[in-house]
Amino acid sequence: MTNPVELIRRKRDGAALTREELSGLVGAYTRGELPDYQMSAFLMACYFRGMTEDEMLAFTDLMLHSGTVLDLSDVPGIKVDKHSTGGVGDKVSLLLAPIVAACGVPVPMISGRGLGHTGGTLDKLETIPGFRTDLSIDDFRRVLRDVGCVLIGQTGEIAPADKKMYALRDVTATVECIPLIAGSIMSKKLAEGIDALVLDIKTGRGAFMEKTDRAIELGSALVSIGERAGKRTVGYVTDMSQPLGTHVGNWLEVVESVECLRSGDRTPDGSADLMELTLLLSGTMIWLGGKAGSVEDGIDRSRGAVRNGAACAKLLDIVRAQGGSVGAIERLDAYPPAAHQLTIAAESDGWLSSIDALELGLSGILLGAGRKAVADRIDPLAGMVLNKKRGDAIKKGDTLVTVHASDRSRLESASTRIRAAFTVTSTKPSPQPLIVATITKEGVRTGLASL
Amino acid sequence: MTNPVELIRRKRDGAALTREELSGLVGAYTRGELPDYQMSAFLMACYFRGMTEDEMLAFTDLMLHSGTVLDLSDVPGIKVDKHSTGGVGDKVSLLLAPIVAACGVPVPMISGRGLGHTGGTLDKLETIPGFRTDLSIDDFRRVLRDVGCVLIGQTGEIAPADKKMYALRDVTATVECIPLIAGSIMSKKLAEGIDALVLDIKTGRGAFMEKTDRAIELGSALVSIGERAGKRTVGYVTDMSQPLGTHVGNWLEVVESVECLRSGDRTPDGSADLMELTLLLSGTMIWLGGKAGSVEDGIDRSRGAVRNGAACAKLLDIVRAQGGSVGAIERLDAYPPAAHQLTIAAESDGWLSSIDALELGLSGILLGAGRKAVADRIDPLAGMVLNKKRGDAIKKGDTLVTVHASDRSRLESASTRIRAAFTVTSTKPSPQPLIVATITKEGVRTGLASL
Repeated sequence: MTNPVELIRRKRDGAALTREELSGLVGAYTRGELPDYQMSAFLMACYFRGMTEDEMLAFTDLMLHSGTVLDLSDVPGIKVDKHSTGGVGDKVSLLLAPIVAACGVPVPMISGRGLGHTGGTLDKLETIPGFRTDLSIDDFRRVLRDVGCVLIGQTGEIAPADKKMYALRDVTATVECIPLIAGSIMSKKLAEGIDALVLDIKTGRGAFMEKTDRAIELGSALVSIGERAGKRTVGYVTDMSQPLGTHVGNWLEVVESVECLRSGDRTPDGSADLMELTLLLSGTMIWLGGKAGSVEDGIDRSRGAVRNGAACAKLLDIVRAQGGSVGAIERLDAYPPAAHQLTIAAESDGWLSSIDALELGLSGILLGAGRKAVADRIDPLAGMVLNKKRGDAIKKGDTLVTVHASDRSRLESASTRIRAAFTVTSTKPSPQPLIVATITKEGVRTGLASL
Repeated sequence: MTNPVELIRRKRDGAALTREELSGLVGAYTRGELPDYQMSAFLMACYFRGMTEDEMLAFTDLMLHSGTVLDLSDVPGIKVDKHSTGGVGDKVSLLLAPIVAACGVPVPMISGRGLGHTGGTLDKLETIPGFRTDLSIDDFRRVLRDVGCVLIGQTGEIAPADKKMYALRDVTATVECIPLIAGSIMSKKLAEGIDALVLDIKTGRGAFMEKTDRAIELGSALVSIGERAGKRTVGYVTDMSQPLGTHVGNWLEVVESVECLRSGDRTPDGSADLMELTLLLSGTMIWLGGKAGSVEDGIDRSRGAVRNGAACAKLLDIVRAQGGSVGAIERLDAYPPAAHQLTIAAESDGWLSSIDALELGLSGILLGAGRKAVADRIDPLAGMVLNKKRGDAIKKGDTLVTVHASDRSRLESASTRIRAAFTVTSTKPSPQPLIVATITKEGVRTGLASL
């Protein structure tokens, strides 16, 4: 390998490294031969200098092949997964996986844990008593074949280079670099053995990429990597300025998901945005999976699976197959409630013009619903339920949100911050589109574009 | 301390950190509480974002106070030191220290080892049998008081934060950052207990800062730190496009230094630039040390100390006081010569228009005169003696340089490179000034300016 100091220097000075040079760095790092301090300097240089598309593709491929790349060709069907860059109240995976599986498209999903102010699918699933997300690869394959869907956490076998590098980026302020983010996401997704992928790239206050142009840039990088790897990849940039749906917090999000899957055609008002996004993403997955003639047809089929109960039944199948308590899902109100609840009411009449998703996400950490450090335990019951959403008319005294926590002092310390996240104005806010942009290999189109 | 990730992020995003914030980082790093990987990410962010003057001053001061700051107030006189950013054939310290001390100004000098293509005063001194550069602080003080001059290496007690950080910068491509370079240099110099400082900032092919504007930028930073610390500081930006003097290599540079100190008024032709620079720097030091009415007067006194033998006698005093063999200096030709020598001759008539100092410095490493890694041993005898300097008229067959090495294969592998470093042209090159700029707290002036 070329002297790593020389490679760091060249990246620092704006040169593009070859695949062989990147391979030397990533390989040596994964084997423990390149020290963290050289990798962190390299990553910071990447932050400032970026990467060419070729560098990004090579980097992703090297991380992908640092571990096991699943071959699911023995599982019939076109395997499709979804990835979201993370949001507040984003429980889409819990609804979408059973919907898509119920429509006949296998979903091999490897999810993450909550990070910063955003929740994680694994943490939500694990609030279901007995639910196991640490399946072996053999069990992952078996559940996928039997149920059509499986949801697990990243294993040590999948992209270990990314796992090690992500941990380093997290403590060296080198996370926010689009080629590195894109490589990290896609190395894990491409290792899942999928044939196609749908991406939900969040934008707005509660999103990792707050600015829309950065979210589009990330989405374009993700789509480019997916397509260059031979996987059909569609990205949607979606609004995360207010929480998605009404429930924020691990068990609370399971509750909202199950209620939506059970609601047939009568989606609860506050969950309309959640359902709209879920159906778009599931419809796109079903289309990519070859079980619908168009995205619109996929959306219709998704809606049908909710209406006829097939999606909800599939959720129970998943829970059962992964060792979870079906009874907990069947009787949601038998689950023990949070010890403490507090209601926050509107202090004036008007319109709810914004609900700051970032502030609510950070408040969720204060309540115990998220982690400050990787090793922190989370409180499954902590969180909040929105009673109003952006654009709703408000009367003084209306309940805006109910806050849940197991610890009273946490509840009180978070409530001031939660109250301040709601802005009531005297004029009705203009509506904000949920779908901001559509990204395919052909390029970026504003809003929801037909595929 | 604020979360270090937050501090790295803020520096990355272009913010200026407070003294307290920098203190948290430097303190934790020195105590081993901040890991190398966070410091290297921070240093790379500094590379891209730079530092404000306040940050640089605070950073320097923190490194300075990470260890012992010598108090030499019990040694009579105004203590003055010189620092050079390093060059090829730069043996100025060996001449200047005894000259200045002979003129009554105490010189407490802490020097470095050869780094990259540039030589180090310690390595040169240690070729004198018995010469010790690892004196204790007590012995340092005693020799300074007794002899008026002392030359040692950096001890673990002086600026340990810088020592640790410099080693990290060296392996993470974060050396070339002016505030970090300036802080590193000045934290060590200010710890020496000096009252004033003269700086020789090299520019040109063989210099660390090849471009003159960067050398001036570094010089200005150094002068600013020195003056803000209450030490009178003068900087000269000087030419390092060809080696200084005729001899390059550790023992060979001792030989040239002694020959110059013994030459009275008859400086050998090829050593004219070495002597001109030495006398300017020593003259400035003597003026700053209050033993001359002006720099010009200081130069005259310096010249006098060479002429009357006082400087050469002082060199012998130093050698004796630091345990070295006076006999080796008195009888230079008793020193064993390098086992192998090779003469490189001109292949055409003309004028010697350039001697690439960088190439000769790198060739010196090949010969064994310098180090590739910190732990490498150096060959005291390896090096080269220039027979011609830039601007000299050349006849085909004239000896340009004699190359010395203990190892024949090293000699041969370096000789092609050395030959290529000499450029003979048919027209006489225009003369290049040795003194490029003068920097004081009042600002930068082109060329040699009167103080």
